[in-house]
Amino acid sequence: LAATTSLASANDELVEMQQNAKNWVMQLGNYSATRYSELEEINKDNVGDLQVAWSFSTGVLRGHEGGPLVIDGVMYVHTPFPNKVFALDLNDNGRIIWRYEPEQDPNVIPVMCCDTVNRGVAYGDGKIILHQADTNVVALDAKTGEELWKTQNGDPSKGETGTMSPLIAGDKVLVGNSGGEFGVQGHMTAYNLETGEQEWRAYSVGPDDQILLDPENTTHLGEPVGENSSVDTWEGDQWQLGGGTVWGWVSYDPELNLVYYGSGNPGTWNPAQRPGDNRWSMTIFARDLDTGVAKWVYQMTPHDEWDYDGVNENILVDMEIDGEQRKVLFHPDRNGFAYTLDRETGELLVAAKYDPAVNWATEVVMNEDDEQYGRPQVVAEYSTAQNGVDVNSEGICPAALGTKDQQPSAYSPETGLFYIPTNHVCMDYEPFQVSYTAGQPYVGATLSMYPAPDSHGGMGNFIAWDAAAGEIVWSVEEPFSVWSGALATAGDIVFYGTLEGYLKAVDMETGEELYRFKTPSGIIGNVNTYEHDGKQYVAVLSGIGGWAGIGLAAGLTEGTDGLGAVGAYQSLSDYTQLGGQLTVFSLPSE
Amino acid sequence: LAATTSLASANDELVEMQQNAKNWVMQLGNYSATRYSELEEINKDNVGDLQVAWSFSTGVLRGHEGGPLVIDGVMYVHTPFPNKVFALDLNDNGRIIWRYEPEQDPNVIPVMCCDTVNRGVAYGDGKIILHQADTNVVALDAKTGEELWKTQNGDPSKGETGTMSPLIAGDKVLVGNSGGEFGVQGHMTAYNLETGEQEWRAYSVGPDDQILLDPENTTHLGEPVGENSSVDTWEGDQWQLGGGTVWGWVSYDPELNLVYYGSGNPGTWNPAQRPGDNRWSMTIFARDLDTGVAKWVYQMTPHDEWDYDGVNENILVDMEIDGEQRKVLFHPDRNGFAYTLDRETGELLVAAKYDPAVNWATEVVMNEDDEQYGRPQVVAEYSTAQNGVDVNSEGICPAALGTKDQQPSAYSPETGLFYIPTNHVCMDYEPFQVSYTAGQPYVGATLSMYPAPDSHGGMGNFIAWDAAAGEIVWSVEEPFSVWSGALATAGDIVFYGTLEGYLKAVDMETGEELYRFKTPSGIIGNVNTYEHDGKQYVAVLSGIGGWAGIGLAAGLTEGTDGLGAVGAYQSLSDYTQLGGQLTVFSLPSE
Ligand SMILES: O=C(O)c1cc(C(=O)O)c2c(n1)C(=O)C(=O)c1cc(C(=O)O)[nH]c1-2
Ligand SMILES: O=C(O)c1cc(C(=O)O)c2c(n1)C(=O)C(=O)c1cc(C(=O)O)[nH]c1-2
Repeated sequence: LAATTSLASANDELVEMQQNAKNWVMQLGNYSATRYSELEEINKDNVGDLQVAWSFSTGVLRGHEGGPLVIDGVMYVHTPFPNKVFALDLNDNGRIIWRYEPEQDPNVIPVMCCDTVNRGVAYGDGKIILHQADTNVVALDAKTGEELWKTQNGDPSKGETGTMSPLIAGDKVLVGNSGGEFGVQGHMTAYNLETGEQEWRAYSVGPDDQILLDPENTTHLGEPVGENSSVDTWEGDQWQLGGGTVWGWVSYDPELNLVYYGSGNPGTWNPAQRPGDNRWSMTIFARDLDTGVAKWVYQMTPHDEWDYDGVNENILVDMEIDGEQRKVLFHPDRNGFAYTLDRETGELLVAAKYDPAVNWATEVVMNEDDEQYGRPQVVAEYSTAQNGVDVNSEGICPAALGTKDQQPSAYSPETGLFYIPTNHVCMDYEPFQVSYTAGQPYVGATLSMYPAPDSHGGMGNFIAWDAAAGEIVWSVEEPFSVWSGALATAGDIVFYGTLEGYLKAVDMETGEELYRFKTPSGIIGNVNTYEHDGKQYVAVLSGIGGWAGIGLAAGLTEGTDGLGAVGAYQSLSDYTQLGGQLTVFSLPSE
Repeated sequence: LAATTSLASANDELVEMQQNAKNWVMQLGNYSATRYSELEEINKDNVGDLQVAWSFSTGVLRGHEGGPLVIDGVMYVHTPFPNKVFALDLNDNGRIIWRYEPEQDPNVIPVMCCDTVNRGVAYGDGKIILHQADTNVVALDAKTGEELWKTQNGDPSKGETGTMSPLIAGDKVLVGNSGGEFGVQGHMTAYNLETGEQEWRAYSVGPDDQILLDPENTTHLGEPVGENSSVDTWEGDQWQLGGGTVWGWVSYDPELNLVYYGSGNPGTWNPAQRPGDNRWSMTIFARDLDTGVAKWVYQMTPHDEWDYDGVNENILVDMEIDGEQRKVLFHPDRNGFAYTLDRETGELLVAAKYDPAVNWATEVVMNEDDEQYGRPQVVAEYSTAQNGVDVNSEGICPAALGTKDQQPSAYSPETGLFYIPTNHVCMDYEPFQVSYTAGQPYVGATLSMYPAPDSHGGMGNFIAWDAAAGEIVWSVEEPFSVWSGALATAGDIVFYGTLEGYLKAVDMETGEELYRFKTPSGIIGNVNTYEHDGKQYVAVLSGIGGWAGIGLAAGLTEGTDGLGAVGAYQSLSDYTQLGGQLTVFSLPSE
């Protein structure tokens, strides 16, 4: 009982802490995943004077995703494999208070699809939770680094790995698995924060009791999903290799007690091997935190033919849509449509292309009475399923890595706009027959990628998005995909990083560039901000890698290597080299 | 003949280029090795406003020694093993113009005594010369990175490796070898800059024809060395394992046409196995550039019993000594004495302790009529030879890594002072019998190191030294050895880096700290400065390692590991982690 009380208050504690702009207690800034900070010392007028306050090399190379947490004068920095964690003392020049250096079997490296990335640690109730590449979930004492508990979340020998950042909500640690390119069955699991014991596990695909759907009360676009809603959309036992892994971001609405996250691609990239809608891959889940049972689901890309994983962030804001104030969930999907849903009911409010290059579908049907309601209307020319096995479908936009991948967006309550780091990349996609061997790639398609044709020549844009209207407000052209998470602040500015290594600050209203600084290596980390000793700081991890940087990170040079990403990003090596550094910025002191 | 002309003018070109403060054309700034710059935009009054202009990750971890060269808008950055070289375009935000990534057998790593360091590339006649760990000397086209020639300078299978920075003088590339801990025979070799052909090779120990000494005209303290001056000071054939490797810095006096450098420790650290003075290990050589023949030699530490390699930099300045203007060579030796010699004649002018902790010798005899003239007077208690094999001699100061190791000093013509990064470390030293196996460590002593007792508790000082008086003018206490090369400028400031990772600027007159910035990783690189587009920049490589940082660099934890250095520097891991970054500083633009 004592433990329960302490954990109930841990929940309250985090709900409160995430509102304190001085700290940065969770990867996306707060439960709503807005990546917005009320700090305003650094603002539109002075951000041009920003300078580097200090820096820290993690001692690890390859892609550094996520970012540091800051809690009451201590900064927690994580690294890609081997997933070291450092607690740095902000009161003593970043001196290392403790470090945790797990021993991990390097055999996990080749079964990580998209570099050895890790999207960061989580904090709750005096603990730092680390999700290792080998799927171990570890609780560390935030003060000492001591290991409190450790539990294995998956089986790397079958291709299950860990890259996602856990979210702590209530007395639970929520953590998913990776391995969609290895035919694993995706799941989200809740562990007890105090003990590490498993409280529930919800698969994305499979029988109802595995996916924790209530046939009568779980809804899809307002209708009960019914029995066997997943299994019935797969041929035979293919769902067992069905993917739908959970490697993206999780958000939480404490009032509704619902957690939100998306599932990844269905297993094998060759659509011919899995006729059907392949539910619930490519789906947003709204699950009850306590039981794991889904309140509603929404599948963005039924029967995926392009690897448009549905795992991107879900940003929870209240906004006016068609004159009505709604509790919405905003989800800029990999498939190039940005979705606005009612987060209580799962009602689809807006679905619009957030990159004009998107061509694989014409629209998402918004008429509730249409039998195609909520479904993207696929363009035959770009349908790799219709074109068939061993046929190269050319010019599909976006590429497999989507109009946006793992890089999280920001939202400003002042402008009511979403700030989205995007990819502007297209692809050729040739499916082929593949057979399954546990622990071996189960991909079944050859891809090549290139900048969106007939456009600005670059492979990315940083955009401001009006989610109610479904319109781009402004767009900054970038030579490479923007693979870094954005930060919006009350200083009327938005920050993001670029693959060449620039930290940039732009005017929230216009997108005008106000500041840039070349950090040591390409940025795929997420910018954050905190206050220490009365001063505002901005922090970001550099370290080129991730899927876009896989060529550099893993030393690949063949264009179709790295699941097709190597060719497009080849020239990145003219701008940056591997790294692993934290850079912390502030205004000059008077 | 055409080639000769071009090379003669290459020589003239470099003599001129090294006087242009806008570039940084050689590792020590100029042929005189002063590491002094006439640039003064950044000065005593504004250095406190210094900020980071940009940064670059090399993509390589472990110890980054040396520093970048800057030649007409292009910066050349090198790395430790595998010794990559990058040409960065200063006119285009440090974009990579070309990169050279040699393939090297990693088997060379374990035969590098003191981390996988490299002290930097050299420039001459449109070529960048790289000295690889595996002893290959490579000439690259400075414009394209194309390999022009490549020659092997030694045999890694016998423990010969490459870490020193070549010096280009006249039409020659001067390069030595490492491997004093593997019983190799040290040598300095001159290669033709145009063709890579060997022009002369001068061993440090051995028969006269190998060491290029002229028995009648080569002098030691004013006297001809006579025949067999080296071989006669070794027992039997021990000279063949005699060390005297040449891994430090080279300087050059174009007027005298003499090159200056020192040789390292005699082979095996167990002095009992090599009775005699072990000439010419631990010796400064003044050699004719054209022929390689020595004009004079001076042995600092006859019959070494402490590993006090004589390879430290030789700074060539003109100064008044005892009322007389002299062309001097200044050499702060590892043994704790700072030597001032007449660089034309080799006359010994001053020899004084530059750390009061030095206790292994009382003095260097300065009376020319004394038979001990020029020799340190060893204190019996600290004589590992007198105490004998398998006896642990305790409390010897300095430790084997000396009062100063490879970290080069700076000199300011304004103050007439030398600015010396020092170690303040003592040791216990226990020699043991060792037998020789080619390619295996040939050390024969167990060491442990610790901060100089009864002092400030730290392991380093940064000092200003009056070489005429033989006196410390001021001294800044540092927690760790200062393993970074200093830079003095006309702005009345001196820069240096620390093992925790700070770049510091101090007042040239007083040592008062004016600026510090925490770079990503510990600094063992050498600070330099250049001007680009009318603006002054300061640049330094971070990346903890070298002998002092070998524990972190190679993952060693036993106190006596890393030739005894691991224990003393253990707490470095509370401050910094491995790295490999260039950080470039400038003043804020108006
Ligand atoms: O299906 C999966 O299990 C899975 C896992 C991951 C991952 O864990 O990093 C990525 C993807 N898929 C993926 O499709 C993708 O685009 C991707 C990009 C990245 C990245 O970090 O840059 N990871 C992943
Ligand atoms: O005897 C040799 O051949 C040799 C080589 C080297 C080297 O090449 O780095 C060092 C030393 N000795 C040495 O004695 C020493 O203190 C040392 C320090 C370092 C360094 O880079 O930190 N290298 C070396």
